Amino acid sequence: MKGNGADRSVPGTLYGIGVGPGDPDLLTVRAARILSVVPTLAVPKSVSDGSSLALEAVRETLESRTTPPKTIELVFPMTKDPAILETARSENARVLSEALLQGDVAFISLGDIFFYSTFGNLLDGLRRQIPEISVRIVPGITSFSVASALTGLPLVQGSESLAVVPATYGAETLEQILDTHDSVVLMKIHRVYPAILKILERKGLCDRTIYLAEIGTPRQEIVTDIRTLKDRTLPYMSLLLVRKNLRAVRA
Amino acid sequence: MKGNGADRSVPGTLYGIGVGPGDPDLLTVRAARILSVVPTLAVPKSVSDGSSLALEAVRETLESRTTPPKTIELVFPMTKDPAILETARSENARVLSEALLQGDVAFISLGDIFFYSTFGNLLDGLRRQIPEISVRIVPGITSFSVASALTGLPLVQGSESLAVVPATYGAETLEQILDTHDSVVLMKIHRVYPAILKILERKGLCDRTIYLAEIGTPRQEIVTDIRTLKDRTLPYMSLLLVRKNLRAVRA
Repeated sequence: MKGNGADRSVPGTLYGIGVGPGDPDLLTVRAARILSVVPTLAVPKSVSDGSSLALEAVRETLESRTTPPKTIELVFPMTKDPAILETARSENARVLSEALLQGDVAFISLGDIFFYSTFGNLLDGLRRQIPEISVRIVPGITSFSVASALTGLPLVQGSESLAVVPATYGAETLEQILDTHDSVVLMKIHRVYPAILKILERKGLCDRTIYLAEIGTPRQEIVTDIRTLKDRTLPYMSLLLVRKNLRAVRA
Repeated sequence: MKGNGADRSVPGTLYGIGVGPGDPDLLTVRAARILSVVPTLAVPKSVSDGSSLALEAVRETLESRTTPPKTIELVFPMTKDPAILETARSENARVLSEALLQGDVAFISLGDIFFYSTFGNLLDGLRRQIPEISVRIVPGITSFSVASALTGLPLVQGSESLAVVPATYGAETLEQILDTHDSVVLMKIHRVYPAILKILERKGLCDRTIYLAEIGTPRQEIVTDIRTLKDRTLPYMSLLLVRKNLRAVRA
């Protein structure tokens, strides 16, 4: 890695690292190698983005180091207020660019770093402020791959197609997507679950749908009869896997 | 791992391991650990399924072992003839169940093991022949995550949605999918490229589409002006990333 403090006029490289679902075992070899030497670790901070899980996934790697990395926290406020977001964006860019002057920085995120990660927005803002920034992306295991592995049933095969959709889409679009694709991953279901359940019931898909929540944590839950979830409060980290082309999934 | 030869009446565990795009660095820590001790390695064999790439991805891990694993090859004929497929299926199940009597077996496949992998069909046949089979799934990095990482631009963010579709779908369905989703990964484009290009041109999406082929190999190619591919013969391992919500991707 370049820029490890030898020449402070040359900024370091920003590594965007997807750490997988939170299990240290599902880090890639490349991610583990970078995290075992990188001088600075950047951790996203907000209530519901699972940042502590991202840190959990890399804890073993960090503990095996003789010198721990310097850690910086980047704040991603959970708001749609453009003024607050813009302030956070420029503050994050300032903190990161300062850290990059000291050497390489690794930003960690659950799952894959380019798949619904806060890193995307951060990078966008950073590239506008520091056009010459050097970035390396390390892909990670997505939540739906882990979810699919946990069910023991393939997600897509042969000529099947997959859609990954935030369930907050309108009912009409969701119905059309469920009609079009063989497998559908519904994300962000926690606030709209009753409406989603109604759609799946109407389409006769309840028996081909599995609910998975908080994968890789002690609270991990897999529910095959999704009707039983009807009156529950669901956690943020939850999804539904719909697989039309399988025989009923409850074997 | 159970069944390592001590009690041959207890069959071993079948590990389905996704090895990522072919780069040894993008194996997960879990995959590397299993492959460093598993007694038998099962490698899918066919002309175009990239089996040699899967083996390439695990070569470093295998070379670091004091005793190499026994290797068995499973044949997946590239045909739709049901008689040939059925013969291959039962022969693969026979070879595998025999190997499992000796201990654990790891089946390796490029990318994620439950994402367009031959392992799905194999497992289906095997479960019918050996209902009590013990299976563990190790997810891997998908080709589209690596493709997205290579472009340096996020695949999906916020409330965006993704579709992954074999491009051999009919034009009408493809157009509907391109209208519905923010990001679309088109797989299996090599035989139908001219038709796909026409659709993307008609929808004004050419400048938001990137072509990636043979990722992780010395022949890796990334093309941002997809019109230049018009008259070329494209390789089997190629895909298109369409990203509607980005500013034109050719920065």
